[in-house]
Formats: sequence, C-alpha cells, structure tokens
Amino acid sequence: MQLVRFMDLHDTVSCGVRISDSVIHHIRGDMFGEIEKLNMAAPASKLLAPVAPPNIIAIGANYAAHAKEAGKKVPDHPLVFVKLTTTVVGPGEPIILPAEAPNEVDYEAELAIVIGKTCRNASEAEALDYVLGYTCGHDVSARDCQMRYDGQWARGKSFDTFCPLGPWIETDLDPSDLRVRLILNGQVMQDGRTSQMLFPPAKLVSYLSRQFTLLPGTVIMTGTPEGVGYFRKPQAFLHDGDEVTVEVEGIGALTNPVRKA
Amino acid sequence: MQLVRFMDLHDTVSCGVRISDSVIHHIRGDMFGEIEKLNMAAPASKLLAPVAPPNIIAIGANYAAHAKEAGKKVPDHPLVFVKLTTTVVGPGEPIILPAEAPNEVDYEAELAIVIGKTCRNASEAEALDYVLGYTCGHDVSARDCQMRYDGQWARGKSFDTFCPLGPWIETDLDPSDLRVRLILNGQVMQDGRTSQMLFPPAKLVSYLSRQFTLLPGTVIMTGTPEGVGYFRKPQAFLHDGDEVTVEVEGIGALTNPVRKA
Repeated sequence: MQLVRFMDLHDTVSCGVRISDSVIHHIRGDMFGEIEKLNMAAPASKLLAPVAPPNIIAIGANYAAHAKEAGKKVPDHPLVFVKLTTTVVGPGEPIILPAEAPNEVDYEAELAIVIGKTCRNASEAEALDYVLGYTCGHDVSARDCQMRYDGQWARGKSFDTFCPLGPWIETDLDPSDLRVRLILNGQVMQDGRTSQMLFPPAKLVSYLSRQFTLLPGTVIMTGTPEGVGYFRKPQAFLHDGDEVTVEVEGIGALTNPVRKA
Repeated sequence: MQLVRFMDLHDTVSCGVRISDSVIHHIRGDMFGEIEKLNMAAPASKLLAPVAPPNIIAIGANYAAHAKEAGKKVPDHPLVFVKLTTTVVGPGEPIILPAEAPNEVDYEAELAIVIGKTCRNASEAEALDYVLGYTCGHDVSARDCQMRYDGQWARGKSFDTFCPLGPWIETDLDPSDLRVRLILNGQVMQDGRTSQMLFPPAKLVSYLSRQFTLLPGTVIMTGTPEGVGYFRKPQAFLHDGDEVTVEVEGIGALTNPVRKA
C-alpha cells in the first residue's frame, strides 16, 4: 500500500492511499491508526511530504564504502545525528541553496524509515512491527558548515528544505536488500544496496528505541552509500537549476529541483 | 504575564495565565495567537512543560568561562546543536538516568527562549519581537556519549527527559542581565549571569533565523555558565534520588528529581 499526504480541494492536508498516478483514495483519520479506506477518490493533486515528523533521526557512516570514502573507521554503534523538522519538503519542491552556505551543498540518497506506533526498547525481532513503512529520503548537507565551520553537524544538515521525503510511504516492503540510487541531472552519482548497511533497519530501530522514545511519524534516515559529492574527485555540489532524484527500489523516485535562495 | 500549560479537569492539556500558586486563568486557543484571558479560573493543577516545541535548538560554549573550562576556544559564531523533542519534561517530572548511559549524566542551567511567531531572517533589532517569552531550561547530557563515544552530541543530549522546561513562560522580561543558577541537593553548582553570554538572545535569534525557519514554540537553549559537573574536580554527576533546580532571575525555579531507569 502506498500512503500519501496531499492537499485536497479545500486546501487542507489529507492522507490517502495512492491507487495510481491519477487516483488517490481518501482514508479516515490519519495514517497512524487503523487505516480505513473510504470509497471516495480524491482528484489527483500535489503530493506533499508523506509525513510531518515529530523528530528526524539520522545515521552517519552506515555503509562501509561511504565510511571509507569519508576517512572514518567503521563505527561499533550507530552514529546518531538529528535534523530539524523544518528541513522537510515534498516531491517536486525545491532544495534551496542557503544564503549562509550556498557553495558546498551535497546530496545523500537514503532509505527513510517511518515509525508507525510509539516504540521504546524494542528487540531486533520485533523492531519492524513498529515501522509503518518506507520512503525515499534525501539527507542534504552544507559540507562547509558540517566539515569545517561547526564541528557539530546540526546546522549543516538542518537548513530549510534539506530533507526531501517522498513520494509516498510504501507499507509492504522488505527493506533488507533494495537498490538505492542518486541521479543528478540524469547522471547516476550513488548506486548502493541496503544490504550493505552496517546497521540494517531492524538493528537501527531497536538500537534507537533503546536510546529514545520513537513517536509515530518519526523518520529515521538510514545513511547513504558511497559516491557523495564532497568526496568525489573533482568534488560535485548542487547548483541552481540542477534536478536531483533519490530512487529506492520498491518505493519509487523522489525528484527535487535545486534553486538559489 | 506567566503562561502555563496544565492538565485540566477533563485530562486535556490547556493553556492559561498563572495568577498565583493556586489560581490559573484559562485563555482562549493556544498561546501563539492573540491571548484572550477568559473570566474563568482553573483549579490549581499539575503544571506541564510550558511548551511542546516543534524543534529544540541549543547553543554550546555561549559563556566564555564555560568555554574555557571545557577547553574550547571562544567560537566566532554560535555553536548549534539539536535536541530531540522527546527530551521535554515539565516541572517535578523525573530526569531519568538512561539505562544505556547512566554514569555521567550532567546538569546545565540555561535561559530558554520560546519563539512566538514564525521567524525568518530577522535583524538583531527586530529579533526579540518574535520571542513569546522565556523559561528555565535544563540541558541534561550524558557526557560519556557526548565526549567519548559518539563525536556528535545528538545522542548524549537527547535521551528521554533530558530537557526539563518550566515552570512557565515569562513574557515581560528583559533577558539581558539575569542571574542563572543551578542548585543540586541544596548546593549551588552554577551561578552566572546572562550578560556573560558571547551571543546574547537578540543575536542568537537573529543568527538562527538566518539559518532556519523558527516556528512558533521553537525553544532555543542559550548555553550554560561555568560549573558543570564534568569539568569539576572531582567530577559531579547526577544520581538516583538527587533533586536539581534551575533558577533564572525574573522567571522562577524549575525543580526535577533524578531517578534511575
């Protein structure tokens, strides 16, 4: 099932089940309760980010090849950082190069986990029962802030529009071996598989639920494969006018234009 | 005016204006619109954290003496980090020593700024117009995670209960020179003044609003004076059974017990 958030005819945010490119079925309530499909099709409409998360928890260096390109040793526990919730945008919305740090804005294609019900101290065996589904996640970074100016990654990872999510939440998906690609202006820049994760989704959810209460709608950005712009030779950053797509097998494609501030 | 959140007789979260220890006046709507006091007193009730923030933005090393005790050079721009929203607890609620990292849990007394209306690119001159008011903030940290295990501060600063806020939001306050103290089991551990901040509130709000959209309810933790437990000789951490108070002049006192998990 593909869960979407969209703007309905009355300009209110609604949730629904995507049937096809042109058909969405309304659901009663939100997507975190029992999902009851209404026998009522919504007109095709602008899709929003499929979730408005109460928190975004992100994982660094979760693919060995990316940890290596970044000159990091393979971590013995997940490397946690946090993105502000004001980073979220939906499919088609622009990624804005921030006026404060426009020159080294970089892409990272990721599988994003969406938590479905409150989760605390879940075992690995039960962890995925707390997951509502998966979406494409784009962990955008201003590398100059992240790598040179701040020490902490918080600011460089949290500029407005730095967390595109979408186009929908796929609820029926085994996350263990999915192809994850990033395509910049038609060129494949990252091409990995979730089977290469050091801490796969069940381990991540279990680990994080031992640290924090994971509320419904919490987004977990699971880390990115190798090939980010900062570590390429020559480096490749995002520029005004670019178009960038995160593609996760079994979910779909999340495309965003890039614009200057 | 002292704005509070509390549990009303119907077990719903309400907002009000505190008149005295035993009297709260209901307000219509929430505290981010026009505040209209209703001629209706609510019975004295358990106060909650005065805000449920969409984001918590925190500032490190914002007092020169604390930067010095931490061996950090004085930063040339605010050092930003983020705390998960699941860290918030209200007055009287326990700070829980997390099972994952119970041994080096440390206190930090702070002035907390509460944003009142959406703020983007505010000048220093207009920055405080976007502030609803101020409350006592407690930036609790698991120093072992923060200093040795993680590199990033996100996890060590984001365990559940690691951001006590309260007891209310004081709306009529000049934040420029307030005494900030931390009292642990009756002993004063920190005693500073907001006039010692490297980046005072107007500068912080202006700076942060140039990086991120500050939504209504966003909490800015403004940093802590010297005297934290980690840098004392001998070190002083929080233990089961402790009682810890953050006191900010002109606001009041925020007291929380400490409990093991």
